[in-house]
Amino acid sequence: MKGEVKKVVLAYSGGLDTSIILRWLQDQYQCEVVTFTADLGQGEELEPARKKALLMGIKPENIYIDDLREEFVRDFVFPMFRANALYEGVYLLGTSIARPLIAKRQIEIVQATGADAVAHGATGKGNDQVRFELGYYALKPDIKVIAPWRLWDLGSRTKLLDFAEKHQIPISKDKRGEAPYSTDANLLHISYEGKALEDPWVEPFEDMFTRSVSPEKAPDKATYVEIEFEQGNAVAIDGEKLSPASLLTKLNALGGANGIGRLDLVENRFVGMKSRGVYETPGGSILIVAHRAIESLTLDRGEAHLKDELMPRYAELIYNGFWWSPERKAIQTMIDEVSQNVSGTVRLKLYKGNVTVVGRKSDKSLYRHDYVTFEEDSVYNQRDAEGFIKLNALRMRLAKMARG
Amino acid sequence: MKGEVKKVVLAYSGGLDTSIILRWLQDQYQCEVVTFTADLGQGEELEPARKKALLMGIKPENIYIDDLREEFVRDFVFPMFRANALYEGVYLLGTSIARPLIAKRQIEIVQATGADAVAHGATGKGNDQVRFELGYYALKPDIKVIAPWRLWDLGSRTKLLDFAEKHQIPISKDKRGEAPYSTDANLLHISYEGKALEDPWVEPFEDMFTRSVSPEKAPDKATYVEIEFEQGNAVAIDGEKLSPASLLTKLNALGGANGIGRLDLVENRFVGMKSRGVYETPGGSILIVAHRAIESLTLDRGEAHLKDELMPRYAELIYNGFWWSPERKAIQTMIDEVSQNVSGTVRLKLYKGNVTVVGRKSDKSLYRHDYVTFEEDSVYNQRDAEGFIKLNALRMRLAKMARG
Amino acid sequence: MKGEVKKVVLAYSGGLDTSIILRWLQDQYQCEVVTFTADLGQGEELEPARKKALLMGIKPENIYIDDLREEFVRDFVFPMFRANALYEGVYLLGTSIARPLIAKRQIEIVQATGADAVAHGATGKGNDQVRFELGYYALKPDIKVIAPWRLWDLGSRTKLLDFAEKHQIPISKDKRGEAPYSTDANLLHISYEGKALEDPWVEPFEDMFTRSVSPEKAPDKATYVEIEFEQGNAVAIDGEKLSPASLLTKLNALGGANGIGRLDLVENRFVGMKSRGVYETPGGSILIVAHRAIESLTLDRGEAHLKDELMPRYAELIYNGFWWSPERKAIQTMIDEVSQNVSGTVRLKLYKGNVTVVGRKSDKSLYRHDYVTFEEDSVYNQRDAEGFIKLNALRMRLAKMARG
Amino acid sequence: MKGEVKKVVLAYSGGLDTSIILRWLQDQYQCEVVTFTADLGQGEELEPARKKALLMGIKPENIYIDDLREEFVRDFVFPMFRANALYEGVYLLGTSIARPLIAKRQIEIVQATGADAVAHGATGKGNDQVRFELGYYALKPDIKVIAPWRLWDLGSRTKLLDFAEKHQIPISKDKRGEAPYSTDANLLHISYEGKALEDPWVEPFEDMFTRSVSPEKAPDKATYVEIEFEQGNAVAIDGEKLSPASLLTKLNALGGANGIGRLDLVENRFVGMKSRGVYETPGGSILIVAHRAIESLTLDRGEAHLKDELMPRYAELIYNGFWWSPERKAIQTMIDEVSQNVSGTVRLKLYKGNVTVVGRKSDKSLYRHDYVTFEEDSVYNQRDAEGFIKLNALRMRLAKMARG
Repeated sequence: MKGEVKKVVLAYSGGLDTSIILRWLQDQYQCEVVTFTADLGQGEELEPARKKALLMGIKPENIYIDDLREEFVRDFVFPMFRANALYEGVYLLGTSIARPLIAKRQIEIVQATGADAVAHGATGKGNDQVRFELGYYALKPDIKVIAPWRLWDLGSRTKLLDFAEKHQIPISKDKRGEAPYSTDANLLHISYEGKALEDPWVEPFEDMFTRSVSPEKAPDKATYVEIEFEQGNAVAIDGEKLSPASLLTKLNALGGANGIGRLDLVENRFVGMKSRGVYETPGGSILIVAHRAIESLTLDRGEAHLKDELMPRYAELIYNGFWWSPERKAIQTMIDEVSQNVSGTVRLKLYKGNVTVVGRKSDKSLYRHDYVTFEEDSVYNQRDAEGFIKLNALRMRLAKMARG
Repeated sequence: MKGEVKKVVLAYSGGLDTSIILRWLQDQYQCEVVTFTADLGQGEELEPARKKALLMGIKPENIYIDDLREEFVRDFVFPMFRANALYEGVYLLGTSIARPLIAKRQIEIVQATGADAVAHGATGKGNDQVRFELGYYALKPDIKVIAPWRLWDLGSRTKLLDFAEKHQIPISKDKRGEAPYSTDANLLHISYEGKALEDPWVEPFEDMFTRSVSPEKAPDKATYVEIEFEQGNAVAIDGEKLSPASLLTKLNALGGANGIGRLDLVENRFVGMKSRGVYETPGGSILIVAHRAIESLTLDRGEAHLKDELMPRYAELIYNGFWWSPERKAIQTMIDEVSQNVSGTVRLKLYKGNVTVVGRKSDKSLYRHDYVTFEEDSVYNQRDAEGFIKLNALRMRLAKMARG
Repeated sequence: MKGEVKKVVLAYSGGLDTSIILRWLQDQYQCEVVTFTADLGQGEELEPARKKALLMGIKPENIYIDDLREEFVRDFVFPMFRANALYEGVYLLGTSIARPLIAKRQIEIVQATGADAVAHGATGKGNDQVRFELGYYALKPDIKVIAPWRLWDLGSRTKLLDFAEKHQIPISKDKRGEAPYSTDANLLHISYEGKALEDPWVEPFEDMFTRSVSPEKAPDKATYVEIEFEQGNAVAIDGEKLSPASLLTKLNALGGANGIGRLDLVENRFVGMKSRGVYETPGGSILIVAHRAIESLTLDRGEAHLKDELMPRYAELIYNGFWWSPERKAIQTMIDEVSQNVSGTVRLKLYKGNVTVVGRKSDKSLYRHDYVTFEEDSVYNQRDAEGFIKLNALRMRLAKMARG
Repeated sequence: MKGEVKKVVLAYSGGLDTSIILRWLQDQYQCEVVTFTADLGQGEELEPARKKALLMGIKPENIYIDDLREEFVRDFVFPMFRANALYEGVYLLGTSIARPLIAKRQIEIVQATGADAVAHGATGKGNDQVRFELGYYALKPDIKVIAPWRLWDLGSRTKLLDFAEKHQIPISKDKRGEAPYSTDANLLHISYEGKALEDPWVEPFEDMFTRSVSPEKAPDKATYVEIEFEQGNAVAIDGEKLSPASLLTKLNALGGANGIGRLDLVENRFVGMKSRGVYETPGGSILIVAHRAIESLTLDRGEAHLKDELMPRYAELIYNGFWWSPERKAIQTMIDEVSQNVSGTVRLKLYKGNVTVVGRKSDKSLYRHDYVTFEEDSVYNQRDAEGFIKLNALRMRLAKMARG
């Protein structure tokens, strides 16, 4: 494999697995490695990643550490929430939506450094490998992709640790033993899957969760909050304008404190098998409820129903890794157009796991009290309903007459 | 209008409004009136309706009082839940799903009594008139439909009360004043709308709710429950087999006690305006979560996603009153076919408004631990993923190459 | 009805029916009438309409005669063809697509003249009344709409002729007798329906057709033609750049001469019944084939399939009169975005009713000879297909294992 | 590879390519080979395949030659036509629909012979490998699949011929040179692709076609034909009841003689690239027009539009090889349910490439002359249309008022 690539950009977390990959790439390809470490709000220090990379012989100019939190929320999370995307009815796509940004930034670094390859640390059974690689190929069709987990023979924990020791890669104590599950985190969510969670009949342990208290431990008194939207995006909380990442951070705090956003599900992976995942998405779980509420006031029925019918497809595209596909972009164009009128304020009650809409208002509201009132009115002629019903019924009457 | 109809079957609740309608029909059409009162689990005594009807001169053989609870849940609620139907992402269609059954039974009584007309008490601004009448026409195309609210001049509370007094229709004290909202109830839900709720920015008062305690007043300790499904239908709770209506009754008790199932929304009516509705659906809110969970284990991905994509359309059909339409039946055929494998058990945690899935198991499970495990395995070749990704990426690579 | 409206804008063809309407409006409402006559390419002189209007007492400044052909093709026909719209699989929507433009222009004239009402000559059983009036209401919600055919008692030919004679409205000889069918025409098509065509088992008479020779009478030698597209729109024929209306005119000539574009169908009207229609759409029948062919080369698969799945909905919206609806505009936004790359040239063979694609080329082509060739190649690794197939098969294998 | 499989069932045409595969399998795996040759109406003698197989050492009991024509049309072609399936708007899926049957029969032979593997002769770039293999895996999840074209090093014509000569496999003269294109044939269609057709700007040569005369050479006089349908399936032609395969054979003759059914297109393969294909589907091209026509009379609008919206998805599933998928079966269940009423007779005019509907009638017709007539009528109240339009317009009026 030596000579196959000359410079590879690795998505590098600084953790044990991607450090092993870093060394393995150096060994196998005898090539220059560029490390890319992103702050997507996963809640970890990034400077240790720099130190580790330096220790492993990466040149300073080949170490990229970027704070992508604002871009992540503004250009990926928010567009997705404009679509009310839920995969299989419940999953908020917290992992899926981060991958396209990482792929995009890796390809930008490829361009900046003159690299010819990219590498990632996703395994060969999951969705993430697909999401990364579809992104790479869509953005740079001639890129060389290296997925070590599909190539090497280090397919067990023991072999990995042996490799690390042999190559003097530091192993923190908690990595010695088998982790009871694996996680992925960013500003939108944290996921847990595998090992201890593999039996879908077994409830997760309480001490696994890191981003939310349990509903039981949440305050006994509800928190009320108002979220303001402009053109489909949340822009302020309780009157305070906030940048996208700051706003989501604040919603995470509010949700986490009130026991909001835990989810336990069995999902269908793109690669063909089912898996069990547990997620915490405190802020996102508030946001989707609020967004639907402001839409309920400001979207025309035709717009809303069209969005609802396309949503499962849109969510599937993101889950499967097709963020950069022409059809995802096409649907997004439509969603964004429709979102132009989605502005106003939603009032929510947060209480021990519940997110309840208790009010919504908007200058663009299509709700008209005078049309809906039970009182006599002058704007709506009730007798119109007869013709409306009769013509809607006509085809069914004809079918019954003909078919019996 | 006299002579226009000779015998009319009225959907008669025994309440003030439909009693006024009863008298008005007698007056206007000088016709025989057949009253039909159904127990759909609304939680009211039906015998008073019989007495009232007799008092108003209805012949005993023209008084129909039916307990339709089992039919309601078995043939209407359960088929709808097999589809995971949610209108506009959130509404469980509690009112919508009862109307087709009432229409069906009214038409059966038309056939039994030789009547030539039906009447209902729905107003001219709402969805229910449509749902009733589409049902009537679909089942008996030549039926004469009378919708008094669209015909008479009793369009205000004062006029109604005057009419009642003039015709010696008893008015219970609480009906004297304006009700602060109107309600509709059955075994699946109770709705509140109008008047005090017409401002969508104002939170409903706590004392309005009748089927559930607030999350705040629910027990501080979670209730765990296991629901067993066969072919898409819930059939047992905690090991006890229950008939459809008994099962939903039990879920209502469980949900209501744990603060589950309240919903406050702005919805798009079929007749064209938005309205604000508040709903309590304690059992249904548990059931839909449980049903999705057992599907997550037993449905193939292709089946599940197809159902998800058709669901908004299906829910819209029911909301708009097209239960008896050929296309609703066609979609149902598909859903029922797919539901053949949806059997197994779901374990839920109910706690202060939250319904959380904590386990699911099934003899028909498509979840395979050996395929999903992080460990080395012999059933799935990780290298297959490379080809999978490359061919999925190919069209996007070609697009990028051609379009830049 | 006198006093109900003060000035009404009538869609006026100059023919007998709309002349009767004109007089009837003057009689009934004692109001000022503004006539609007449009050249949409229907192939009739418009000046006689002016003379007739003057004769009937319309003030010169109240007579609007507009050549809308370019706007019609550019802003209505072409956007619809970008969507490949076919109603019920076959109908090119020639009548449907003209109505929104007429409604738009009528409302513009309402604004210009300070009128408070509009009137049209569509009957109460058809789709056109819906298309006109949905347009009026969508563009000017407070407009007063007058649909004489639904209001008056002139519901038979005899009564109409009596009215005309009584009011000295000139009746051309060919209007004396019953027309054997009714027609609607514009630059895109001509339709025939009713009377002699009402039995769907009976073939139309050859001499009814006006825009095309029969395939039998078309030349024995094929005509080859090249159509050039830019961003989804046809812009040139055989190298000659043409404006939208000129281009469609030329395609009509080519199609008509070669026996192309006749269609005989039974369709489902929005108002609930089926009707039989016969259409001639010579140019449009060429255009849709050519457009699909250039798309086949330039659209990504994801884009093309998304368009195909939304097309029936889009066509239904136009057929039903919802051109001006928010959801039609939303879908259009998506279609137009996707059409940015739909440029190139299509070569067609026109022969006795057949439109056959015989070549297509494009600078934006996504077709790559090197990828598709049977020969050995270096760009596509055939072994990738194994993994692709295996992962696509996985869920079906698991389903078979679990279900037997 | 020796020892990897013990008995393999090969889809064997008797032609050069699959004869080479036969020998290669014997060489490589040293295993027993079972040959399976099907008559799907491709128009070739099958007995030569038996002789060749015997010559190559296949045991008589390992040679399966089956006439599958009736099963093919009844259980595959007809169900697909009930859906009006067209891939990418135009392609009748003639190749796609044969693959699932071949896969099914191969797996049956696997079961009958105790084989442990299957092999096919499809290349690594096309759709057919996917269609075969998805079928194998869906029907027998543990089957071993051998796709020689993806495995061997005989990737050019020269190498193949060398191998054949070396192994004394007879090469017919016309196979010596390069074929100008490749073909696939069955009772539904014949396809041509590759080589001479690879430039999509170049028109196919006339002498390539084998199943139809050109429109130019077709009779100068039209042929009229009546097709009778029962429950969505064609059952008789001109009054003569015919079995499925006999009926399609007759339609092929009618279509071929009248220059019907040629198609030249660029399509999107499932494996990711575009390819150019030319097809002849004479009978199928008649059948789809006739089927839509009988549906136009007998399907309710809701049914018809639901089918139209799902059709692109259904066609894509078949094109991509997912015939045996749970979701294709689910959609089929719905289509078959809806087809219960699709019975009646369609009259067609066939003339030089044109298939024109000129009449349709049915006992189940939903077309009602009395509802559609222009004359005054008593069944439809034209004033109902006003209410119908007003309520349909309401949301658009509200949107315009709020948004301006």
